[in-house]
Amino acid sequence: MALWYDEVFENSLRCGLKVKRTLFSDQSAFQRVEIVETELLGKALALDGLWMTAQGDEKTYHEMLVHPVMTTSPSIRRVLIIGGGDGGTAREVLRYPEVEHVDLVEIDGMVVDACKEFLPEIGSAWDDARLHVHIDDGIKWSRRTDVAPYDVIIIDGSDPVGPAQGLFDLEFYQGCENLLADDGVFVTQSESPVLFRDVHLDMIRVMKGTFKNVHPYYGTVTIYPGGSWSWTYASKSVSPRDIIRERVDFISEFTEIYNEDIHHGAFAIPNHIRRAL
Amino acid sequence: MALWYDEVFENSLRCGLKVKRTLFSDQSAFQRVEIVETELLGKALALDGLWMTAQGDEKTYHEMLVHPVMTTSPSIRRVLIIGGGDGGTAREVLRYPEVEHVDLVEIDGMVVDACKEFLPEIGSAWDDARLHVHIDDGIKWSRRTDVAPYDVIIIDGSDPVGPAQGLFDLEFYQGCENLLADDGVFVTQSESPVLFRDVHLDMIRVMKGTFKNVHPYYGTVTIYPGGSWSWTYASKSVSPRDIIRERVDFISEFTEIYNEDIHHGAFAIPNHIRRAL
Repeated sequence: MALWYDEVFENSLRCGLKVKRTLFSDQSAFQRVEIVETELLGKALALDGLWMTAQGDEKTYHEMLVHPVMTTSPSIRRVLIIGGGDGGTAREVLRYPEVEHVDLVEIDGMVVDACKEFLPEIGSAWDDARLHVHIDDGIKWSRRTDVAPYDVIIIDGSDPVGPAQGLFDLEFYQGCENLLADDGVFVTQSESPVLFRDVHLDMIRVMKGTFKNVHPYYGTVTIYPGGSWSWTYASKSVSPRDIIRERVDFISEFTEIYNEDIHHGAFAIPNHIRRAL
Repeated sequence: MALWYDEVFENSLRCGLKVKRTLFSDQSAFQRVEIVETELLGKALALDGLWMTAQGDEKTYHEMLVHPVMTTSPSIRRVLIIGGGDGGTAREVLRYPEVEHVDLVEIDGMVVDACKEFLPEIGSAWDDARLHVHIDDGIKWSRRTDVAPYDVIIIDGSDPVGPAQGLFDLEFYQGCENLLADDGVFVTQSESPVLFRDVHLDMIRVMKGTFKNVHPYYGTVTIYPGGSWSWTYASKSVSPRDIIRERVDFISEFTEIYNEDIHHGAFAIPNHIRRAL
């Protein structure tokens, strides 16, 4: 029997996928972790009842999170990923041969273990020798003073409730800025500009208190209620317009969505957000 | 008691809104017409169980359908709208003082009557003397030889099943091309590039058999399952890059989404669509 599995937003909007079977379901120290097989989009990961990623849809999210920073940061040798336990972000980062070292800091070991076993199609780069997985608190990691600067920092966390809450405050952004090379680039998912408009605006405002250049950008993710999604790009010195052509040409061979036009187009800000900022 | 009202895509994905009450529900000669009051997005129109438009979300759709053509067509004096029975498209068109005459051809009088009574917030321009509403078949209208050419033609129909089916074929596009001024611009909603990808690609291919310049463009509509949506711009001689600055500056005072950056950004084509075309 197939059942509907719905993400429900404020008890007023729901985004449901018909599920054929549950592959994994357990309670970690942090959250409910579930991997299910959907009829439309293949296997999908949900945390605490919120859709995170699905095989048939994950490129929209992972490509848009990863490639705008990777095609503009002058160096991409050292990369830090906080969150990203499904492995999709690391996979996109590791496509670039210039990448030498990736630290992936995920707080919930159960997410990594379950995704390695049941979602290897998304996390297809776990065995890459450049990837170093740390089951650890990303907020604590952001306060470290004993690591070399990163060229790129990518925040791939869930919504600002539960374990990801601390990924949305000034102290965390300041920590990341300290870990970032002077010509490095930072990016974070920054919620739906429609359904989480206040959170989205707050994040941009707080980041503007930390980074010199802050640029929200926008796209659509099928499994997130309402479809609208955003990411925010931040740097001390680099702009999203500073595209490195060879890198864009290289990565566009692999991508389903991302290309140079999509890159520039995504940074267009809707009027209602412009006015609020 | 509040109930969920879901649009269901292929029995595998659903987009539901919690509904407080039903304001109108009847079967016309063409379709089931329903106007309901939702908790999240105010009043909403559904036809045959498919979400068409909702107060709290309609700008995303209507602005993106209307303004790219209106800010690029050299003349915008005479406008034809086929479909658009909720009145939102006509409202956006009539914001431009240069518009002299609008023919709105909607096949289903019940949609117009119900929206006039229960959704006046969307169709707020019904009383504009420049607007001429015809309850008539848009496909028949496209074959007329006794009307002056239109500067702009806008197709605001529903999905290619039921009464809107004929709005998706070569003969219809050829009829519209015949009715279009040589420097006029045509636009149609062109379905979800994700969930109706094949229909979307077919529409572009067929339009390319009719119009010299054909440009799909993309956005997000909260109430459409998956969120992704597309429109397609077509012309004999005009390009979406030919922006008339005074018109963009004028209309951007009124819009929630649309501005010049959004205009250009929307025409970025995802790689998977580029490769398929």
